[in-house]
Amino acid sequence: MGRLAYNPLTMSKTVLTRNNVQVVGRGDDVLVLAHGFGTNQTAWRNQVRAFEDTHRIVLFDHVGAQGSDLEAYSPHRYAGLESYALDLIEVLEAVQARDVFYVGHSMSGMIGLLAGLVRPELFRGMVFISASPRYINAPDYRGGFERPDIDALYETIEKHFDAWASGFAQAAVGPSATPEVVKAFSESLIALRPDIAIGVIRIIFESDFREQVTRLNVPSWVVQPLHDFAVPNHVGEYLAKSLPKGQLHYVPNQGHLPHMTAPNEVNALIAQALAAAS
Amino acid sequence: MGRLAYNPLTMSKTVLTRNNVQVVGRGDDVLVLAHGFGTNQTAWRNQVRAFEDTHRIVLFDHVGAQGSDLEAYSPHRYAGLESYALDLIEVLEAVQARDVFYVGHSMSGMIGLLAGLVRPELFRGMVFISASPRYINAPDYRGGFERPDIDALYETIEKHFDAWASGFAQAAVGPSATPEVVKAFSESLIALRPDIAIGVIRIIFESDFREQVTRLNVPSWVVQPLHDFAVPNHVGEYLAKSLPKGQLHYVPNQGHLPHMTAPNEVNALIAQALAAAS
Repeated sequence: MGRLAYNPLTMSKTVLTRNNVQVVGRGDDVLVLAHGFGTNQTAWRNQVRAFEDTHRIVLFDHVGAQGSDLEAYSPHRYAGLESYALDLIEVLEAVQARDVFYVGHSMSGMIGLLAGLVRPELFRGMVFISASPRYINAPDYRGGFERPDIDALYETIEKHFDAWASGFAQAAVGPSATPEVVKAFSESLIALRPDIAIGVIRIIFESDFREQVTRLNVPSWVVQPLHDFAVPNHVGEYLAKSLPKGQLHYVPNQGHLPHMTAPNEVNALIAQALAAAS
Repeated sequence: MGRLAYNPLTMSKTVLTRNNVQVVGRGDDVLVLAHGFGTNQTAWRNQVRAFEDTHRIVLFDHVGAQGSDLEAYSPHRYAGLESYALDLIEVLEAVQARDVFYVGHSMSGMIGLLAGLVRPELFRGMVFISASPRYINAPDYRGGFERPDIDALYETIEKHFDAWASGFAQAAVGPSATPEVVKAFSESLIALRPDIAIGVIRIIFESDFREQVTRLNVPSWVVQPLHDFAVPNHVGEYLAKSLPKGQLHYVPNQGHLPHMTAPNEVNALIAQALAAAS
C-alpha cells in the first residue's frame, strides 16, 4: 500500500533544507552549535573559527530563523520548544551524528535538554550558554521577570516590533559590545518575520522546564555571563545545581550573547568542556 | 556541582505518576495502548481483555486526561502534540519498554508518529485508529473541515462546554453505539477541565503532520471506520498511502471510537497486525 518507499535521502533532504544544515571543519569529534532567539547559525562564526581545525561542526537554523525554510513555520507546528527539540533530533539523524558535543545558546539550551531527555545517547556533553529553565518568577523561584512585565513586553512587541527590536538588541548584547556586534544582532532581529518573532518570544517566556532539568543524564556545563539582563546569575546557579551532572562557569561578560561579545572566554570554556567530555 | 545524582527511580516515578502508567497482562511482547481526546486508558478495556493473556500491556493517561497529574498541565507545556510525543517516549523509557507494538487512537496516532520519527527502534509496529494528519481542508487536501467551521467550533466550546460535550459525545460515538458507551464517553468528556479540553481540541484541529507521515520508518496499520465524522474515509486512505510502510483497513463502524463501539472488529485487526509484525 505504501506510496513511498522509505528513503533516508528524502528524509535527510527535507530536514537538511528545512533547517539549512551545514557541516564544516575536520576531526573525529562532532560539535553541534545551536543558536538562540534573534540570531541564526552565523552567530557562531567565532566558535567555528576556533574549532574548525579540530572538530566536525554541525550548524543549522531553527525554523523561523533567517536561512531556515520559513514555509515550514506555523505557530501551531512551533507552539513549544518541544517542536524544536524534535527538529534537533532529526537534524542529528539527517547527518548521522552520534555522541556529539552540543552547545546551545539561550532557547537552544532547553531545546538541547528536551532532546537529551529522550535521546541521551546522542549527546556526549552539553554547554548551556545564557540559558534559563524559566524566566517568570514563581513561588520559591526567581526567574527575573514578573508576569505584568512580560505581558507589557508582549504588547510592545506586537505594536512596535522594529522599535522594540532595536532597543532589545542594545540591551541583549550589553554595554561592552562593539558597534559591529550590536549592528549584526539588531539587523538579524529586525529581519525576523514579526509574527514569528512574537510567537517565539512567547514560547520562550512562558516556558518552564524546572522539572525536566533535574532529569538530564548528560554531563553539562552552564556558561553564565556575569550581567545578563535575560538570565540573572542565580538562574545560572539554579540551572547548574538542578542538572544532575551540571557545573557552573561564569564569563566576565555583560550581555546575553557572550559567544559573540566575549568569544575568547567562551571558547576557552567550550575547549575545557570538550576536553573533560572526551 | 550536581545537587542530585542521576536516579532512574526518581525519573520513573515522576513520569509514572504524571501519566498514571499501568502495566498489565502477561507475555513477552509489549502492546502500548494510547487513548485519544476525551477518553483515558479506561477506553481500552475491551482490548485489555482481549490481549492480557498474551501480551504485556502498557496503559497511561495523557497529561490533562482523567487519571493524569493535572498539576503537570499547562497550556504552554502542552501547546502541541510534540509535547505528548516526548511524554510517550518518557513513558516507554520509564517502564524500559523497547520494540513495542503501539496502538494510538485519534490524537495518539500523530503522537505515536512523532515519537516514531525520533525513536523508531522503540516501535515494532503502529496501529492508527481514527487518526488524521490534518483536519482542515487545504489546497489539494481534504481534511473534512473548513476553517470557519472550526472557528465556530472553538467559540461554541468556549461558551457552552457542557452542552457541546454532550452533543459531541453522541456524534463521536456514532448512531450504532450502545447507550452505555455514549454515557461513558459523555461523562469522560464532561469530566475534563474545560480549559484543558479547549486547549487540546485546538492543538488537534490546528495540527498538520502531512510532511511527517511520509517519513515514518515503522510498519503501520491504519484502521479507518466507515463513517467517522472526524476522519473521513479519504483521510484514512491518504494516511495509509503517505505512510512509507502503511496499509489501510476499514472497520464497518459508524463513529470515531471503533475500539469502544466495534471492539471485536478492531481487536481482530490488532491481532492481525500483531501477527504480521512478529
